[in-house]
Amino acid sequence: MTDDLLTEVTAFAETVLAPRAAEFDRTERLPREIITRMAELGLLGATVPERWGGLGLDPLAYGELTEVVGKACASTRALMTVHTSLVCQTLLELGSRRLKEKYLPDLARGTRLGCFALSEPGAGSDAAAVATTYLAKDDGFVLNGHKRWISFAGIADVFLVIATDNGVTSAFLVDRDTPGVVIRPMSGFLGNRATHIAEVLLTDVVVPGENLVSSVGAGFSFVVNTALFHGRYSIAWAGVALAQAALEQMCSYAAGREQFGSPIGDHQLVRRMVADALTSVTAARELCRRAGRLCAERSASAAMETNVAKYFSSTIAQRATADAVQVLGGNGCWSGYPAERLYREAKILEIIEGTSQLQQIMIADFAYQRYARKNKVAP
Amino acid sequence: MTDDLLTEVTAFAETVLAPRAAEFDRTERLPREIITRMAELGLLGATVPERWGGLGLDPLAYGELTEVVGKACASTRALMTVHTSLVCQTLLELGSRRLKEKYLPDLARGTRLGCFALSEPGAGSDAAAVATTYLAKDDGFVLNGHKRWISFAGIADVFLVIATDNGVTSAFLVDRDTPGVVIRPMSGFLGNRATHIAEVLLTDVVVPGENLVSSVGAGFSFVVNTALFHGRYSIAWAGVALAQAALEQMCSYAAGREQFGSPIGDHQLVRRMVADALTSVTAARELCRRAGRLCAERSASAAMETNVAKYFSSTIAQRATADAVQVLGGNGCWSGYPAERLYREAKILEIIEGTSQLQQIMIADFAYQRYARKNKVAP
Amino acid sequence: MTDDLLTEVTAFAETVLAPRAAEFDRTERLPREIITRMAELGLLGATVPERWGGLGLDPLAYGELTEVVGKACASTRALMTVHTSLVCQTLLELGSRRLKEKYLPDLARGTRLGCFALSEPGAGSDAAAVATTYLAKDDGFVLNGHKRWISFAGIADVFLVIATDNGVTSAFLVDRDTPGVVIRPMSGFLGNRATHIAEVLLTDVVVPGENLVSSVGAGFSFVVNTALFHGRYSIAWAGVALAQAALEQMCSYAAGREQFGSPIGDHQLVRRMVADALTSVTAARELCRRAGRLCAERSASAAMETNVAKYFSSTIAQRATADAVQVLGGNGCWSGYPAERLYREAKILEIIEGTSQLQQIMIADFAYQRYARKNKVAP
Amino acid sequence: MTDDLLTEVTAFAETVLAPRAAEFDRTERLPREIITRMAELGLLGATVPERWGGLGLDPLAYGELTEVVGKACASTRALMTVHTSLVCQTLLELGSRRLKEKYLPDLARGTRLGCFALSEPGAGSDAAAVATTYLAKDDGFVLNGHKRWISFAGIADVFLVIATDNGVTSAFLVDRDTPGVVIRPMSGFLGNRATHIAEVLLTDVVVPGENLVSSVGAGFSFVVNTALFHGRYSIAWAGVALAQAALEQMCSYAAGREQFGSPIGDHQLVRRMVADALTSVTAARELCRRAGRLCAERSASAAMETNVAKYFSSTIAQRATADAVQVLGGNGCWSGYPAERLYREAKILEIIEGTSQLQQIMIADFAYQRYARKNKVAP
Repeated sequence: MTDDLLTEVTAFAETVLAPRAAEFDRTERLPREIITRMAELGLLGATVPERWGGLGLDPLAYGELTEVVGKACASTRALMTVHTSLVCQTLLELGSRRLKEKYLPDLARGTRLGCFALSEPGAGSDAAAVATTYLAKDDGFVLNGHKRWISFAGIADVFLVIATDNGVTSAFLVDRDTPGVVIRPMSGFLGNRATHIAEVLLTDVVVPGENLVSSVGAGFSFVVNTALFHGRYSIAWAGVALAQAALEQMCSYAAGREQFGSPIGDHQLVRRMVADALTSVTAARELCRRAGRLCAERSASAAMETNVAKYFSSTIAQRATADAVQVLGGNGCWSGYPAERLYREAKILEIIEGTSQLQQIMIADFAYQRYARKNKVAP
Repeated sequence: MTDDLLTEVTAFAETVLAPRAAEFDRTERLPREIITRMAELGLLGATVPERWGGLGLDPLAYGELTEVVGKACASTRALMTVHTSLVCQTLLELGSRRLKEKYLPDLARGTRLGCFALSEPGAGSDAAAVATTYLAKDDGFVLNGHKRWISFAGIADVFLVIATDNGVTSAFLVDRDTPGVVIRPMSGFLGNRATHIAEVLLTDVVVPGENLVSSVGAGFSFVVNTALFHGRYSIAWAGVALAQAALEQMCSYAAGREQFGSPIGDHQLVRRMVADALTSVTAARELCRRAGRLCAERSASAAMETNVAKYFSSTIAQRATADAVQVLGGNGCWSGYPAERLYREAKILEIIEGTSQLQQIMIADFAYQRYARKNKVAP
Repeated sequence: MTDDLLTEVTAFAETVLAPRAAEFDRTERLPREIITRMAELGLLGATVPERWGGLGLDPLAYGELTEVVGKACASTRALMTVHTSLVCQTLLELGSRRLKEKYLPDLARGTRLGCFALSEPGAGSDAAAVATTYLAKDDGFVLNGHKRWISFAGIADVFLVIATDNGVTSAFLVDRDTPGVVIRPMSGFLGNRATHIAEVLLTDVVVPGENLVSSVGAGFSFVVNTALFHGRYSIAWAGVALAQAALEQMCSYAAGREQFGSPIGDHQLVRRMVADALTSVTAARELCRRAGRLCAERSASAAMETNVAKYFSSTIAQRATADAVQVLGGNGCWSGYPAERLYREAKILEIIEGTSQLQQIMIADFAYQRYARKNKVAP
Repeated sequence: MTDDLLTEVTAFAETVLAPRAAEFDRTERLPREIITRMAELGLLGATVPERWGGLGLDPLAYGELTEVVGKACASTRALMTVHTSLVCQTLLELGSRRLKEKYLPDLARGTRLGCFALSEPGAGSDAAAVATTYLAKDDGFVLNGHKRWISFAGIADVFLVIATDNGVTSAFLVDRDTPGVVIRPMSGFLGNRATHIAEVLLTDVVVPGENLVSSVGAGFSFVVNTALFHGRYSIAWAGVALAQAALEQMCSYAAGREQFGSPIGDHQLVRRMVADALTSVTAARELCRRAGRLCAERSASAAMETNVAKYFSSTIAQRATADAVQVLGGNGCWSGYPAERLYREAKILEIIEGTSQLQQIMIADFAYQRYARKNKVAP
């Protein structure tokens, strides 16, 4: 990443996004000009190689930009998670040459937006419960089903849809304007309010055969796993972003606000919250960097170390943002300051792309593989 | 308390409030018919003696009703906190006979609503920083100042205003329609969204001498302390209410929702959250009852044990509601279920009527007084 | 309970036990004169009816005494847990008239000591894994097996042994001097160091038929469950005792010790630990009292509410004692002050008579039964 | 660091230290042959440049070795903290050429042992409260005072003593055999039991002028700060070591032990503890590496980032070791397994070289400096 890019994105985040983040949250929409500017900066194809129209950034640089954007506005950052990480990256790694030629340049340049349609009313963390079906027919497939909680489905042009044929799960790119696709905007969310969440109803939607991602049956083991791996990497950085924003809020407020005759930042109980935020966000960022290095090296443990980073980072973001609300007191409960929004956004990170509970179960497996044989049990 | 009353209030809470609580939150208002029904049930004068038009409930019975109402709707419960606990109770204990005759029957019957105007832009937990002034003039007082974050100021008829005259702090009842009173509704809050929070601007507001509460200079040591004591008692039960609501949500959801082939309630990590919620809410309720008994006995330690209850209860409410969101997963982040609202409401309890940090400092004093001399320090 | 008894036990605890608790811990033994004094005070038969030689205390009074003793010395309190709660109480409730006549008066007067022999190398929290066997023979039973971690086995006269015959589990009272009983003292424990923990090896031990407790097959559903129920009630109060001791240590030390120019008790970070200790120990005590009341009423939920009390109380004892070490700093890590011993004792409470994890699983069941049907799941 | 060295130290740790660590703990001594072997491996001069007889390792390599040794035996690791980090490193950085020539080669080769005599009965975290005095006399100094809790004072040959002359604090190297030096071994510690902790009484002890470290008045701002900086770096790695040992214990035990019919490692509540241990120890190690890199670069923020690492690492070590005890259940409370020792050792890390509370206060300052001006306070 060039210093120029970091500087430009930082300027965009601090001068454009941060001042308007509360507005995006309140109005529940991300204005088109924001998305256009993200596209111009290359954020929508940040990790896509230059030959496909992207910036070709390595995971570390991409993570750093994710933090910068996410510190200013979680919904804007979510577009990177969904479009860039989940869709572009998965298409890049698993799509056929033909499918990449058809979609990747537009996606990378941001002239088309993609979203990831996995969740259903009965399938959240338990991705295997997907009930949307596909049937091979002629040269293509026919899809039927009901997707829910799909971030950016409200404005996306292309949907990466996971569907099943009697247990054989596959993934498809579906154009928004295909007959049978109906989008129903949803609202009333704790956070991610400007992510144009919607339900996607698919009724006899015909998808051309070339729009199959990877191969028949690769839906879970390849597509979902790849997408969620990239999604978790992005969410890990999103946690760093929120915790860092909370830390900065606390520091500024604590230094500027007096109570009982001294800046509240002098109070030890405030210091404890500030110290915990700085300590944990530093640790979270190092875990993200570690995951990023392992991703760049295509290490076998990259996915698991990304889970570790995502789990830790979302946990500490929740705590740091709760503490930010606490430090700001009444002001922390009011949208005139970012703290209450950070608090709402952070909770979501403990759930999306795999709940913390799911992470705990998976990380323990990783631990057993590594350490269970090293020591004898008995004395 | 009669069983009938508990039954009636429970029915009101479960069949009227609970189904509409999300609507009140979204529309940021408590409909007039709700307040009327509360008045009919006697909730707005629950602790006021019958001779003044109230129900004459003891603290324990009042606490129990607070839990019932608060489990269904935090904003509705907040009206009890503000009107019944902060205003009625304080007027009852500290008002002159004449002032009580003038206001208490209407307040107790709910034909007039009261609110508590202490907070200011520069004075939150640090009540001593109040900048609103009063000046004795003729037979009355002239008030000037700017109150902020005043719950129910948007619809209240009477304001219990705290003001200072060069460090001598006093309290006054101010009628809404007094010339010079301007109300500016506020919005954008994390929770308590239907509590008609507003700013109250006072410009040369003339208050008759009889509207002084207690005596000149009694603003803090008597009025604020009395009001906050009652407020904290109410908030302590409000925490129990939210935690109990979270517990019930978790249990119902966990029993009814399947994931990975079994009800999610079978998963040990869900059980842990459920067990922690049940355990902590049971403990919190016992602390509230203990405080209630001590209040009823007018024990010298009632105020401090109420702080203990408020501190504990608000802390565990925050945790239990966060866990409820977690158990519900994606549904926990969406207003179709109460979890996300409970989560937003609970955080506020750690701040209002004295932050948890302030409670910690005061409770430690209480501990030192009790235990510091008992043991020798040295070996 | 008479005030005299409480006064006497308090005096014993404060003037005899507390000053010597570190010695008992270091030397890993409870001197005979301590046990004699406990017997004189009636502590070894506290809950046994007077007609059987006991004090006939109700659960609440017994709990209060458990706190008083446990605050001074955990190993001494453990004798009450084992002898009085686990053995006497179980014999009282489930033993035949003949068996009670044979053992209960001696046990209640403390002329004989009992212990509870359930744990085995392969059976801890999972009591069902017991491998010790019994076989009916002639008029009695022959026992073979290996019990481990048996508190007070080193000095007990009678062992309440749980054994199995091909899955049919039964319980027996075994005299120490029966041929085939071999006791092997164990040492090197984190806490409970003066509880004379030992292994009990049983080789062709013949037990008369009358020593069967309850009936054949009643080993688990009756004997173990009854014993553990009483054990958990005792441990719940033991947690209150340790947390209260920690609280008093912190307060005294914080008030007496200066650092950076002021008593360390002035520092907010110390206050926080003190406030948390006071708050949580107050809550734990209320939960214990609640469990005690329900026990006295023979409520159906007494066992489960006792689990709640035990789980909460052991959890907060661990935290409060860890904080006491922290407040005392270097002195907290040294046996010249009680803090480090309290810290070691408290950890054990999270494990004995059912780990916190086991409690969480059981408490969740309780919660589901109570609350799962109350609310509908869906919006 | 060569791979050979890491291999040799690992072999020493795993085959010599680990099997005997319980013995060292029980007998409260570190055998001479262990120290000799440490010296042969170069551990006692690991960071001292080769020209002074050391290994010349950089901070990262030294940290890695600290983890390897500390995982096996905390008392052995403590000798590295005291001798190598606190004494050698401080002498290297602040000693005069002459003083280095006199002591450093022997210290680096381990033919003499050094210890750090700062703590006093009235001066723990508050180093400024030192009461030991020095007086300039002839060409040297006369020292009087009472040092306490001095690790390895029982066997050290040289003491780095901090003393004051009416507020002007200086540091001196004092030979053990100087007249007036009396050593009184202490015992009864929670952990670090084999570190030969002792009191050091100084009565008219004459120290030659050349044994002044740095200059008169440099006691705090240079010597103590330098020593504690290196000490904290070592303790940070010590926390990683204990947490990693706890993690490996949990994994091996959980995989090998069955309960309720399946390996306890399958239980989600065990998985959670394992996952938290792996996650937090990974984060702690990354923070230590970050601090190590900044130390190597002589970054201005190295000291503060070392505080961050020390604070985090000691906090998570306490939690991971407590969880290890929990996973092992009864076996976790017994010295037949390392868990209970790890638990006792870990608590100490939250206190030595500056309590966690002190770290919180300092880290908050660091946070304010970095972030307080970045954001505006007001909306």
